[in-house]
Amino acid sequence: MTRVDLNADMGESFGPWTMGDDAALLQTVTSANIACGAHAGDPSVMARTMRIAIENGVGLGAHPGFADLQGFGRRRLNIPRAELQDLIRFQVAASVGVARALGGGVRHLKLHGALANMASEDEALARDCYEAALSVDPNLIVMVLCATAQEQAVRALGCAFAGEIFADRAYNEDATLVDRSLEGAVIHDPELAGRRMVEMVQAGAILTATGKRIETSIDTICLHGDTPTAVQIARSVRAALETAGVTVTQFDGRRV
Amino acid sequence: MTRVDLNADMGESFGPWTMGDDAALLQTVTSANIACGAHAGDPSVMARTMRIAIENGVGLGAHPGFADLQGFGRRRLNIPRAELQDLIRFQVAASVGVARALGGGVRHLKLHGALANMASEDEALARDCYEAALSVDPNLIVMVLCATAQEQAVRALGCAFAGEIFADRAYNEDATLVDRSLEGAVIHDPELAGRRMVEMVQAGAILTATGKRIETSIDTICLHGDTPTAVQIARSVRAALETAGVTVTQFDGRRV
Amino acid sequence: MTRVDLNADMGESFGPWTMGDDAALLQTVTSANIACGAHAGDPSVMARTMRIAIENGVGLGAHPGFADLQGFGRRRLNIPRAELQDLIRFQVAASVGVARALGGGVRHLKLHGALANMASEDEALARDCYEAALSVDPNLIVMVLCATAQEQAVRALGCAFAGEIFADRAYNEDATLVDRSLEGAVIHDPELAGRRMVEMVQAGAILTATGKRIETSIDTICLHGDTPTAVQIARSVRAALETAGVTVTQFDGRRV
Amino acid sequence: MTRVDLNADMGESFGPWTMGDDAALLQTVTSANIACGAHAGDPSVMARTMRIAIENGVGLGAHPGFADLQGFGRRRLNIPRAELQDLIRFQVAASVGVARALGGGVRHLKLHGALANMASEDEALARDCYEAALSVDPNLIVMVLCATAQEQAVRALGCAFAGEIFADRAYNEDATLVDRSLEGAVIHDPELAGRRMVEMVQAGAILTATGKRIETSIDTICLHGDTPTAVQIARSVRAALETAGVTVTQFDGRRV
Repeated sequence: MTRVDLNADMGESFGPWTMGDDAALLQTVTSANIACGAHAGDPSVMARTMRIAIENGVGLGAHPGFADLQGFGRRRLNIPRAELQDLIRFQVAASVGVARALGGGVRHLKLHGALANMASEDEALARDCYEAALSVDPNLIVMVLCATAQEQAVRALGCAFAGEIFADRAYNEDATLVDRSLEGAVIHDPELAGRRMVEMVQAGAILTATGKRIETSIDTICLHGDTPTAVQIARSVRAALETAGVTVTQFDGRRV
Repeated sequence: MTRVDLNADMGESFGPWTMGDDAALLQTVTSANIACGAHAGDPSVMARTMRIAIENGVGLGAHPGFADLQGFGRRRLNIPRAELQDLIRFQVAASVGVARALGGGVRHLKLHGALANMASEDEALARDCYEAALSVDPNLIVMVLCATAQEQAVRALGCAFAGEIFADRAYNEDATLVDRSLEGAVIHDPELAGRRMVEMVQAGAILTATGKRIETSIDTICLHGDTPTAVQIARSVRAALETAGVTVTQFDGRRV
Repeated sequence: MTRVDLNADMGESFGPWTMGDDAALLQTVTSANIACGAHAGDPSVMARTMRIAIENGVGLGAHPGFADLQGFGRRRLNIPRAELQDLIRFQVAASVGVARALGGGVRHLKLHGALANMASEDEALARDCYEAALSVDPNLIVMVLCATAQEQAVRALGCAFAGEIFADRAYNEDATLVDRSLEGAVIHDPELAGRRMVEMVQAGAILTATGKRIETSIDTICLHGDTPTAVQIARSVRAALETAGVTVTQFDGRRV
Repeated sequence: MTRVDLNADMGESFGPWTMGDDAALLQTVTSANIACGAHAGDPSVMARTMRIAIENGVGLGAHPGFADLQGFGRRRLNIPRAELQDLIRFQVAASVGVARALGGGVRHLKLHGALANMASEDEALARDCYEAALSVDPNLIVMVLCATAQEQAVRALGCAFAGEIFADRAYNEDATLVDRSLEGAVIHDPELAGRRMVEMVQAGAILTATGKRIETSIDTICLHGDTPTAVQIARSVRAALETAGVTVTQFDGRRV
């Protein structure tokens, strides 16, 4: 049986400002990466998002990022490794404890923004982040971008992980993303996004823009939550997968 | 055997700014109320403070406050109860999880600043705060200001608590603090502070400025950490207690 | 010739988060109250908003509020008067200087949120705020809520001011706003809002929910920018005024 | 007549946290670089610092940095040039307007921390920053690190500037600072600091650790304010200069 998880970033509103339509997305995804108050989110946004996710049976994830609200965690910061680990531990601890207090539990970890980008290029940094998160809860499943240094890090650590691909981005032959400035780099057509995901999941491989196949462990598909067509793409991908006989359900976490 | 705990607020530095001499105080106190990143502290300050406290065998406490860095949590904010509970849960969860990841454990809760003042006047608010904290960890011992609405709240909840008096403040006959603007309200003399604490602990009562006795459960003495003479007063109080045969050790938490 | 200005709060986006449709509103209003980075806005949001306002010939206003991003400046803070004046001066100075650097100029001042509410009840506080703003630029026209302590303050100061009424709120007989929890307190119907504004502007008076007339100096109408129907109400009010022969144009500032 | 200015960073306290002893330093320096609320400082800290500087006849400078309070503006951020200019304009505007409201005036600009480091390596970036500042006030004198890209930028712009050297740092042969990890890189001895400054000012040149001479325009000496010996070094440098017959006074600003 072919199966896959659908995940999206959530809980990224802050105070009076709303980001994305979490309530709608939470009816489609199976895993939610919930901001921890550093790059976005605040205690009430986090709790509200977790409550809806728990009600909908969506898996909770801690989604830590740089403490840079104005930059939304999208700007790279060079901070000492010990400080980075403190930052991760703090955010994961807050997520884990709040989820438990609300009657749920955090299942997975996913790094956010610039921190995720840095971790996808730097195995040692990725490992430092994951170790910090696992020191708070050793049972966390680490969500990693397939075929990047993130995946190398979890394989080296031997922890449970789930491999992720993007629903709306074209891939280069080395499994990196096609630069946003190039045509076709971002897929805006919900139907096309759905078709591609069915192909990749069934192939068990990333299919590059040039038609190459990169075999990898696809456990979950990342749906972006903050674009105008986010909800449509999410629904379209889910419908396409289900029509094709792929079971959409939470990942279990794999180990090497 | 007469015994008492000594507590102080800690971990209130932030980024490049230092507050108090935590390392010195951690050699004298038996319990540390550690800021949770809302009114003060940041993830690295919290971790550093917890590590030293753990090494010194000092009991860890979560010390949540309003998310008002510039005001240091000393300004009253009227926020909805649900939001207040989200705020407390988030901070306590971060503390509890980080402490565990560092090989320690949070034993107690103490509210900070304006939030503590509001809770000492409003039993329902105190109860909401304590319930939120206990939803994260039901084993927390709640530190309360003796003979205030804080104490009424823990008695009504039936949770474990520890009663607290101030080492450096004079008391009115209704157990409130003498207004800071009045002479003698704040005790700056380390020796006097030590002598008073011995008397109150041995009496099992608050002794007011007017000489009245208010019987109460004194489990811990609050030493302020951010004054110039903080460390001296702390040492003087501890020495005076030990000389008088009072055992200075962590509280166990009492229940009604 | 009857004339009136239309104003709305603007520049209240922050970092990745958008608030309201400023570009659309800036085609309808004649004055823009632009956030100064304390309760909302950031340097780039401020500059972007000012540039569009300047291009559209819309009058620029400094719109200072409490430095409480998460609470959007809507939570009351009791801070010392000197500190409050520092806060106002800082925000007004930033506005005035940035506007000038961009080739424009700040014409007016309007207080935001909780600070505005406090100033409408407390003449001394209002006066302190206005004096602080005028110390940065003595030519600012102070926008005040008609028939409140704000208006008393500008009359006492003798500075230039413009009186304001709300397009979408019902009034009590003492010129305060009908409590939001009561039926009819908030007007959601664009056409009704337009009709009421024509009546009040032509009458030179607030018309209360009970039908009473409170004569006052209506120089500008406040259009809220952050509601779903904000743009429609703005257009409807403007169209209704113009149809009725009222000239929609910037206020000049009146003095007692 | 040989003359030189003494400058130090100031106004870097924040809310409850104190940084440095500004009041003491303001009795020794002739120019104060005052934080603008982004990397440090808040409206009240800024006003307090400006007031003391004005009373002491110390020249006021705007000292903008990255909006990164926790990192104290010491972490590099890659932000788009337009956004960087918005950031500078905002901070300089706040400084200029507040100083004027308090009866003073901002004379100079000095970039802070990581932003200053980036500008000392990248002439285009330096130029963007200075143009933004000058768009707020074209009369500002730009303080630049001698013999760096900062100096190239002001020479290209043709604006008034003042060249700066450090009192407590050893120099490499290319006029960069000796790495802090190397012995002798930082000068802690007040007397040695004083002697070196007299030599360099009289020589009109940077004297490197290796004994080389780099001729340059020394208009001001930077005294660090946040080290334990800051005040002593400041006094020692001033005394040594005066004893050697160098007039310690504000720079006028030079142009190419």
